Amino acid sequence: MTMLQIVRVLVASLIIASAVGDEIKNVLLLLADDAGLEMGAYLNKFSQTSNLDALARRGLLFNNAFTSVSSCSPSRAQLLTGQASHSNGMYGLHHSVHNFNVLPSIQSLPNVLRENSNGRILSGIIGKKHVGTADHFRFDFEETEERHPINQIGRNITNIKLYTREFLRQAKAQAKPFFLMIGFHDPHRCGHITPQYGEFCERWGSGEEGMGTIPDWKPIYYDWRNLDIPAYLPVTDVVRKELAAQYMTISRLDQGVGLVLKELETLGFANNTLVMYTSDNGPPFPAARTNLYERGIKSPFILASPNAEDRHHETTGAMVSLLDVYATILDAFHLSTNNSAFSSKSLMPLLRKEPRPQDDDAVYGSHSYHEITMDYPMRMIRTRQYKLIHNLNYWSYFPIDQDFYTSPTFQQILNATLHRDNLPWYRSLQSYYERPEWELYNIKSDSMERHNLAEQPEYKNVLKVLKQRLHEWQASTNDPWLCAPHAVLQAQGIYKENPVCLTLGHESL
Amino acid sequence: MTMLQIVRVLVASLIIASAVGDEIKNVLLLLADDAGLEMGAYLNKFSQTSNLDALARRGLLFNNAFTSVSSCSPSRAQLLTGQASHSNGMYGLHHSVHNFNVLPSIQSLPNVLRENSNGRILSGIIGKKHVGTADHFRFDFEETEERHPINQIGRNITNIKLYTREFLRQAKAQAKPFFLMIGFHDPHRCGHITPQYGEFCERWGSGEEGMGTIPDWKPIYYDWRNLDIPAYLPVTDVVRKELAAQYMTISRLDQGVGLVLKELETLGFANNTLVMYTSDNGPPFPAARTNLYERGIKSPFILASPNAEDRHHETTGAMVSLLDVYATILDAFHLSTNNSAFSSKSLMPLLRKEPRPQDDDAVYGSHSYHEITMDYPMRMIRTRQYKLIHNLNYWSYFPIDQDFYTSPTFQQILNATLHRDNLPWYRSLQSYYERPEWELYNIKSDSMERHNLAEQPEYKNVLKVLKQRLHEWQASTNDPWLCAPHAVLQAQGIYKENPVCLTLGHESL
Repeated sequence: MTMLQIVRVLVASLIIASAVGDEIKNVLLLLADDAGLEMGAYLNKFSQTSNLDALARRGLLFNNAFTSVSSCSPSRAQLLTGQASHSNGMYGLHHSVHNFNVLPSIQSLPNVLRENSNGRILSGIIGKKHVGTADHFRFDFEETEERHPINQIGRNITNIKLYTREFLRQAKAQAKPFFLMIGFHDPHRCGHITPQYGEFCERWGSGEEGMGTIPDWKPIYYDWRNLDIPAYLPVTDVVRKELAAQYMTISRLDQGVGLVLKELETLGFANNTLVMYTSDNGPPFPAARTNLYERGIKSPFILASPNAEDRHHETTGAMVSLLDVYATILDAFHLSTNNSAFSSKSLMPLLRKEPRPQDDDAVYGSHSYHEITMDYPMRMIRTRQYKLIHNLNYWSYFPIDQDFYTSPTFQQILNATLHRDNLPWYRSLQSYYERPEWELYNIKSDSMERHNLAEQPEYKNVLKVLKQRLHEWQASTNDPWLCAPHAVLQAQGIYKENPVCLTLGHESL
Repeated sequence: MTMLQIVRVLVASLIIASAVGDEIKNVLLLLADDAGLEMGAYLNKFSQTSNLDALARRGLLFNNAFTSVSSCSPSRAQLLTGQASHSNGMYGLHHSVHNFNVLPSIQSLPNVLRENSNGRILSGIIGKKHVGTADHFRFDFEETEERHPINQIGRNITNIKLYTREFLRQAKAQAKPFFLMIGFHDPHRCGHITPQYGEFCERWGSGEEGMGTIPDWKPIYYDWRNLDIPAYLPVTDVVRKELAAQYMTISRLDQGVGLVLKELETLGFANNTLVMYTSDNGPPFPAARTNLYERGIKSPFILASPNAEDRHHETTGAMVSLLDVYATILDAFHLSTNNSAFSSKSLMPLLRKEPRPQDDDAVYGSHSYHEITMDYPMRMIRTRQYKLIHNLNYWSYFPIDQDFYTSPTFQQILNATLHRDNLPWYRSLQSYYERPEWELYNIKSDSMERHNLAEQPEYKNVLKVLKQRLHEWQASTNDPWLCAPHAVLQAQGIYKENPVCLTLGHESL
């Protein structure tokens, strides 16, 4: 090390010391792919997740965390920009023919961290990235599907461990605070691409014949006969087998979390790193992923602070959105963000004190596409008691994505429908396809969202208030779909100062 | 000039001389914005277009040229890639919240010309570009809306003239063959953004009070009382006034064409430049732009060769697609392209000989979006006799774009509908909004597309054959919407070698 380098390190250390007043110097974001609440900490009786459960005990476990969008790329874009998908431009999937990217003007977390800290904070991503353009999400350290096979970088937990080690060593050598995001590809399905590895790639790397071996993974095999089926899924053995495969894959994710946290400890960062765990969207089952129903948006969320004064081994009932991750991470680094009423809000204060629940607590949802062909935009507000969904293309049948279509669960539902067979499911495929423009549910009494109250006279006022709040959120976040589907948004020319929704006259036909 | 530079120029000249065997050395593509056939050469009795008419006399005038997509950015992407919008990824508008870009793998004309000629060919674009990403469409010379106000670079014909001069001088100084594209912004509407300049910006630069002056423009004022109304528009004075404004703007475009051609002559390129004139899509009136009806896709098209042996002052009835522009330009430079059955086909042979019309002559259409919120994908095949349109989101009302919505013509239609007033129009707003999944028209006897034959038993076989051909085109051009709206495309895993459309069971509900 030259003298100049030594001076630089010393100066950098001083800046860090002065900028970070408490014990949090770094942030680690652990992100699952299509995971719901299938973990012990959330009282799932079967899925063994000892590492996640231990992390939950170290931190704050959220019972009311929601993603604002139920699709992979848009969800990751929300995390990294703090903006709803309709605001940041990531309206659907990033890869292949879908080709969605954020708008040119959008700033993302790695770029903002670099620029606002003058390069002081080191950013890294390991695993699945799935957002773009590359320039808009430029991490200092990137080991993602852009340069590795997705399974090798997203499901091979030994690789994830080793790259984590490499990144942490760099952070240590450079004496920089860091933001590291680990994008696990588990427990995503893979049956429609590589069915030879099992529907969830649960056999891949298991050491079985032809499956290869992930050295650090100790597969947990579940006997499907033992499993209970969540209320929103058909009660069939096909579904039980799906769950057994999903849980096996979740065990790989869970052990990966354990390996990463162990690296953090070994390299001496356990005591100054804020750890977050969540998932991009709900599991790939009906009424879950690609939906704004509860199983599509309810997110596992753990916030574990190294600070002794912060809350540990507690749960919180605060209503939070994954949109808040952005502001939380900036706050952890003591950097500020815009603080408009509807923007991303830091969750750091929750580490000190549980807020009193308010009647108007709410989170919002905005889902437009998943695949480019799945044009079924939806907007949502969910309070503690109610959920209102606005289906903007309600004329059309609800779309089914390629990945979910080939799943045994969907195939069973489809075939039962085609053959008019009975299926022990809480709803029909027809009701799943055909949705009204407005769906209003009393979540407290109807968590399955079976009874649409939108047309019930006694809920007229609830509906009116929620519609109004949803519209205000859309307006304040510049939703291009603000006036859809029965009016046209005009926001230029004579309407520049006062954007308006002008009728298409559908109601007069 | 150093000796080395002189040698370089000499070598470059030798390469050109050996590579180009006939008199065509350069290509000039003149592109109008939302123009239809409103010109003297196409027998419009009112719109004065002396420069375009003169160009038509110098070349070949196409009576059966069609754009494959009726929206600005997708159309320009088709011209510059030779691929349908569903293949190149430019599914809708490029700018603002729409944010469409071509797929990462796509090659465009300027890039291909540069790479395949080792930089020998100079490319330039002046005026409206409206495609992206920038890297995917990298012209050597760019003076576009990306660095100028759109009116100044797209409607100010003096600016267009001066930048053309600058580009041609560069080509001359570098002794390089060139491809120059001029993207006129006329006769696009502007009423919803800058109504103070008139609905088509027809007063902008006219020298009237507060309008500024375009030095080279001699505005032509039309008395709306004299004008005839095309059969597809409501017969009202509101529409007559719209046409008068549109024609006035077309006169600016026409004079711009004259100025550009004059520069070509002055700089000595008139005798070795292939000139093309066309428009991105039909005019911004109902059943035209954003539609695959005849007025939305029928394109003005002139191909004027400097070669004495080529056809001049003739018309051709060949069925051609704007997709063919790409291959034509490569062919003009003696560069080859992939020659699959459905790819872009060079029009150069038409300059020598009129082909015999074939019964199965056909062009195809693929329109998915315009604005991001306008999810109304359509696919089309048009033969000499029939047109089949597949409306993939036929459940929904046909969408109206922001620009067209505020137009006096649409406002009149809407208000007449809202107030149940009679309107002398060939169709109702309801029939315009509500379209069946399949539309089959006998264009020869029903050019207004009023009588849908799709459900007529006697056209069952015609329907079947056209559906089959349309499906084959979509399959061979990798249409992500191949199976929409009643099935899911599976093209990975076990279906990788043999992609299939698997049913969603809509018909069984």
